[in-house]
Amino acid sequence: MEHVVIVGGGFGGLYAAQKLARCAVNLTIIDKRNFHLFQPLLYQVATGGLSPGEIAQPIRRVLRRYSNVRVKLAEVTDIRTDDSEVVTADGTLSYDTLIVATGVTHQYFGKDQWENFAPGLKTVEDALEIRRRVLYAFEAAEREPDSDRRKEWLTIAVIGGGPTGVEMAGALSELARDTMRHDFRNFGSEDIRIILVEGRNRVLPTYPESLSLSALHALERLGVECLLNTSVTEITSDHITIAVHGTHRQVPARTICWAAGVSASPLGEILSTRTGAKLDSSGRILVQPDMTITGRPEIFVIGDLASFTHQGEGAEPLPAVAPVAMQQGRYVARVIKNRIAGKTIAPFHYRNRGTLATIGRASAVADLGRARFSGYPAWLLWIFVHIAFLIGFENRLLVLIRWAWSYFTFNRGARLIAGKRGDRSASDPGAPGDVNW
Amino acid sequence: MEHVVIVGGGFGGLYAAQKLARCAVNLTIIDKRNFHLFQPLLYQVATGGLSPGEIAQPIRRVLRRYSNVRVKLAEVTDIRTDDSEVVTADGTLSYDTLIVATGVTHQYFGKDQWENFAPGLKTVEDALEIRRRVLYAFEAAEREPDSDRRKEWLTIAVIGGGPTGVEMAGALSELARDTMRHDFRNFGSEDIRIILVEGRNRVLPTYPESLSLSALHALERLGVECLLNTSVTEITSDHITIAVHGTHRQVPARTICWAAGVSASPLGEILSTRTGAKLDSSGRILVQPDMTITGRPEIFVIGDLASFTHQGEGAEPLPAVAPVAMQQGRYVARVIKNRIAGKTIAPFHYRNRGTLATIGRASAVADLGRARFSGYPAWLLWIFVHIAFLIGFENRLLVLIRWAWSYFTFNRGARLIAGKRGDRSASDPGAPGDVNW
Repeated sequence: MEHVVIVGGGFGGLYAAQKLARCAVNLTIIDKRNFHLFQPLLYQVATGGLSPGEIAQPIRRVLRRYSNVRVKLAEVTDIRTDDSEVVTADGTLSYDTLIVATGVTHQYFGKDQWENFAPGLKTVEDALEIRRRVLYAFEAAEREPDSDRRKEWLTIAVIGGGPTGVEMAGALSELARDTMRHDFRNFGSEDIRIILVEGRNRVLPTYPESLSLSALHALERLGVECLLNTSVTEITSDHITIAVHGTHRQVPARTICWAAGVSASPLGEILSTRTGAKLDSSGRILVQPDMTITGRPEIFVIGDLASFTHQGEGAEPLPAVAPVAMQQGRYVARVIKNRIAGKTIAPFHYRNRGTLATIGRASAVADLGRARFSGYPAWLLWIFVHIAFLIGFENRLLVLIRWAWSYFTFNRGARLIAGKRGDRSASDPGAPGDVNW
Repeated sequence: MEHVVIVGGGFGGLYAAQKLARCAVNLTIIDKRNFHLFQPLLYQVATGGLSPGEIAQPIRRVLRRYSNVRVKLAEVTDIRTDDSEVVTADGTLSYDTLIVATGVTHQYFGKDQWENFAPGLKTVEDALEIRRRVLYAFEAAEREPDSDRRKEWLTIAVIGGGPTGVEMAGALSELARDTMRHDFRNFGSEDIRIILVEGRNRVLPTYPESLSLSALHALERLGVECLLNTSVTEITSDHITIAVHGTHRQVPARTICWAAGVSASPLGEILSTRTGAKLDSSGRILVQPDMTITGRPEIFVIGDLASFTHQGEGAEPLPAVAPVAMQQGRYVARVIKNRIAGKTIAPFHYRNRGTLATIGRASAVADLGRARFSGYPAWLLWIFVHIAFLIGFENRLLVLIRWAWSYFTFNRGARLIAGKRGDRSASDPGAPGDVNW
């Protein structure tokens, strides 16, 4: 039987695997983590609303009943496309057909030193690190006698006004204002500043303008200071420097979250070098209408790592969001199944069922194409969609309970400051060069 | 108002704080972590059954409604008993009355190098590290072509046959045999060895003999190899050396959990140096019948850090378990309240309501003094007691759901291999000198 290898167990890889597992192929799925992560809810882990285990599911578990499927925990370091082999630390693996779905990581536009001060939000570790810094900042503020330094601890800056930044800022504001309202004695929730910095002239810049406006209003109701048309020129351990129309200004802030930029997984460049595939400006691979690499019908690239345009090169590529990856995963599984049967199928076509973002308590914005709305109905839809796509019934139940509980009590149940340096967790986590676990 | 300072937010400190918060005192509780941890269930975090957030609760949250209570995240490094001051990294704090409840940590009987290979189980980080090693070992076994080395990966040794060791071994066996039964292709659950090593002639040596026997049978039914009268003389990254009646033998094992010994928190020795208080052999402070230090009526020591005997020195001290700490916490709160009213109360008397240990699925042993039983009824009692003492209604609900789910599906929902070295989690976690997060 044909051997299909999938690299990456995110939405693209896992959806392809679930469909291919029922076909007459041998399937190997490789991921450097042992679990599939429901990334759209990662910001809730970062703000203490959910535990990592509640939005993750072991890849093995999801695919356990298919005896034709093997799951391998390994990091793919190279793909020898001429030999049809993927390379990992403990050996190579031959494939007949390859699906690459390794996604993106955050990037700092050449300022890698910023990562120390402003962690991004892509992995479970990222989320726990942000949670640790945010919760620690409040603890530090509580015992800080100097009022200026206390203000530094009480200011949280989120860089980037896309969906992740907006959802983070909203959740942080709720955490500060509602959840922790009566927890501290030396400051009040009105002393906490949440700042959202966005370079363009509106939040959610890829959404329709009316929804950007709703989101902005929702954020302002939550007390988030939204700085639009504002870029960040420097990040240090205790402040950020922002630039508005050429004027620079320092904003003291001890806790900074990065939600501003992503770049493609390194496998993108490796594939490009090996096969001559073209990359877009952020390193994503330009794919054919059937999601393959030009001239390599046996290699598919899907999800965030793929740059796909319905109208061909030059037009706007599909956004790097979960629904695109899911649909592409299912599509390439169909392509492979049909090839085995000697059939071809139509090019990939993305069906946009809409976009959703939530901004704090009982508030969200929805753009379903024909219908655009915000507020409570959008929030209910948001909950329904996110529960529906969570993998695992137990996780669905646990997350629903967490949300219901948090809705009625304003509490967030997973507020642990934890990490490798557990014994020393009372020390400053923002120091540069620190090992932060 | 009198200022009472509590050091430590475990069972002793938190139960004292909850009672004192309702009295006419100013109260400060200091802990180096921001949360109270329900330690009796930590082994379930280590075996993927629960998430850390489900058995932890922020100390601030528990005490938030009492305006006379302050919570401070800090590590106490010294206690200047002559000046009535506790010392932390960011300053000193005066007290009128002090309650020290900082518990114990694991010790390796002078072989500190073993800690690298055999982590103990006292903190959330410990539990996640053990979870990571156990789950990683199965992944490594799955891709290991050499059958001898695969056996090393598939052998897990638990050192110490007390309640923690017994519960760990039982849960590990279930994880290996039931939860992960169909997850792997290159080995079967029958290839997995769980070894429990105990120096004395029975497991649960502090329990009545009949219960030790029930526990041993339960472990053997679960396939755990119980090596009694066996001591460990060496631990390395890929084997342990055991000694039975003077004969040494090497047992290849890549994953080792330490449940063998504890020693008192360093504050015990500091208090002893400052006040002349006597310590027992494991560094616990011998306390007066009212839980104070001899000659220091303003300093109470409670919980695992205290060595208390109803019959005075020489007799068997109370065991280092949660119920003792809880009762002592409540007792000292009563002593302090009565002192303010100018009254004295009777010496502390521990009411032993019984001991419980669970060994795998629907199986436990209970010793309630008058009644001793094991099996399903003991297991139901175990569940009831543990849910009842969990702090926070949300946690109770979540843990109950996790357990019900796990009972009916044999699944364990929190099986993430996570840590600082997320990107490199596929590398060998057992290498000596490694930073293991």
